Amino acid sequence: MAIVLAGGAGFIGSHLARHFLAQGRHVLVLDNLCRGRQEYLANCGGNLDFDQIDLADEKATLAAIAACHARHPISEIWHMAANSDILSGMEDPHVDLRDTFLTTFSLLQAMKKLGLGHIAFASSSAVYGEHGADVKIAEDTGPLLPISNYGAMKLASEALISAAAENFLKKAIIFRFPNVVGVPATHGVILDFVRKLKESPELLKVLGNGSQQKIYLHVADLVDAMLFINERAKDRLTVCNIGPDDAGCAVRFIAESVVQAISPAAAIEYGSADRGWVGDVPRFSYSVKRLENMGWTSPRTSSQAVAKAIEEIICQEHGL
Amino acid sequence: MAIVLAGGAGFIGSHLARHFLAQGRHVLVLDNLCRGRQEYLANCGGNLDFDQIDLADEKATLAAIAACHARHPISEIWHMAANSDILSGMEDPHVDLRDTFLTTFSLLQAMKKLGLGHIAFASSSAVYGEHGADVKIAEDTGPLLPISNYGAMKLASEALISAAAENFLKKAIIFRFPNVVGVPATHGVILDFVRKLKESPELLKVLGNGSQQKIYLHVADLVDAMLFINERAKDRLTVCNIGPDDAGCAVRFIAESVVQAISPAAAIEYGSADRGWVGDVPRFSYSVKRLENMGWTSPRTSSQAVAKAIEEIICQEHGL
Repeated sequence: MAIVLAGGAGFIGSHLARHFLAQGRHVLVLDNLCRGRQEYLANCGGNLDFDQIDLADEKATLAAIAACHARHPISEIWHMAANSDILSGMEDPHVDLRDTFLTTFSLLQAMKKLGLGHIAFASSSAVYGEHGADVKIAEDTGPLLPISNYGAMKLASEALISAAAENFLKKAIIFRFPNVVGVPATHGVILDFVRKLKESPELLKVLGNGSQQKIYLHVADLVDAMLFINERAKDRLTVCNIGPDDAGCAVRFIAESVVQAISPAAAIEYGSADRGWVGDVPRFSYSVKRLENMGWTSPRTSSQAVAKAIEEIICQEHGL
Repeated sequence: MAIVLAGGAGFIGSHLARHFLAQGRHVLVLDNLCRGRQEYLANCGGNLDFDQIDLADEKATLAAIAACHARHPISEIWHMAANSDILSGMEDPHVDLRDTFLTTFSLLQAMKKLGLGHIAFASSSAVYGEHGADVKIAEDTGPLLPISNYGAMKLASEALISAAAENFLKKAIIFRFPNVVGVPATHGVILDFVRKLKESPELLKVLGNGSQQKIYLHVADLVDAMLFINERAKDRLTVCNIGPDDAGCAVRFIAESVVQAISPAAAIEYGSADRGWVGDVPRFSYSVKRLENMGWTSPRTSSQAVAKAIEEIICQEHGL
């Protein structure tokens, strides 16, 4: 049975593609290559089909999935496509509308038309908005008042999937990701710091005062957790936070670690705001009880995930 | 200062239009007239401008609002536009996408471009999904897992407004409506029953087993509550349930009351399902503490609202 990977040429999608291909599954990757790259899928081997389409385009999405389904019946749709650049989405929400929300709409329409019932969706802790550091945010926590268009379009996608689960889906899984780190890095604070220091090795300017503290998960652990949940979820609709069970890691720690690794003499200059940009949630505390109760625990803490990713991203950026 | 009423030719919007016009405000009604009708605004008098546009069309929306703003500076945007027909939206989600969600997207884009900061938005208890009759759903209740595309697109709209409140809005109010009844009725269970009995006076067929129990509010009371909240809300973002503080009113009561009023000898035939259709929340219990703490209490119970609306809708349908 084939698997469709929407956004499968992206940071996280390409890891999933490798996994499913290694399992011997037939994989159809659909990606607009706005942020993903075909080279991320190089040397994957196996039964990989790649189709560069705009997933916000309903007709193109249906056509691509229907064509695959006719040759290799599809068992699961993994929807990892999104505009992962939160900041750009605050400046122009059309990007989030198209790449994060309308992709979900198109995929669900195609699934309904083709009678496909199993979707796994990459949502985000950004759907929660700001609850402060004292509330341990669990899957049932409310209210859901996102502060970025990225979070808004992820919540909008969740809502559509939830209605579709009532209507026609057989099995829908909504994963809520924390910050995910690793390679191939396309965006994010570590990559940003590494690139800044490569350009000006004497000074690292940090957005915000460095106190922003977030949960980080390494992409290898994320993929492991998603597969675990997908295997065990029995309900028509499952929502699950994914992350390590810790208090997170501060931007200051990341800045200092990157400086230490690349340019130990560099000065670090912090901003004054408590957040990096409009739409940035400065601190949050995350409950992963549901996932732990299912039987999965992260092998790495937030800081360990960050430390590993810093090494990997430095190698990536220096072509090592 | 002018007020823009998106969806102002609809059931609820036309009541608001009358109110603002009576206050002497300049009102611009924007409506695609899919469900609204210009005649609902007949004999309103006052400074009313009407523009039939598709609010999902960003350019048209911006142009209409900008033109008004140039002549009469706009102080508030009231967004009442939506596909209110939940059932049709489950059959074809494009209607909800266009009329419920993309209208919100367009309006926010126009507001950002024109520097308008005050939006009042008609959301719905449908964003909550099913919590069973035992949970009193309050504004902070989670999870938010709507079971209709209507509820999904309302939640999606809330999410966008929430992100915009972080980004550029000065004052955003999200009203969560229960079932709203009254005239001019364009849809809903009472109108449905009245029309069915007019057509076949011997038998009323009811979708679902009649046990669905919901909160009902009369449109006159809804308008009163919205104006009250809009006046008092001070935060950048206010979310508020609106409704009477009661356990609601069963479909069986509505069916019997309509039969009694129109065709007392008619038989009533119930279905077997606990809900009228896919996406119909069969029962819910609603907290209006936040609104009561602000100082507003509904003058009518759910049953009283229904009883009044039945009279009004019978008059409407019989041209009285």
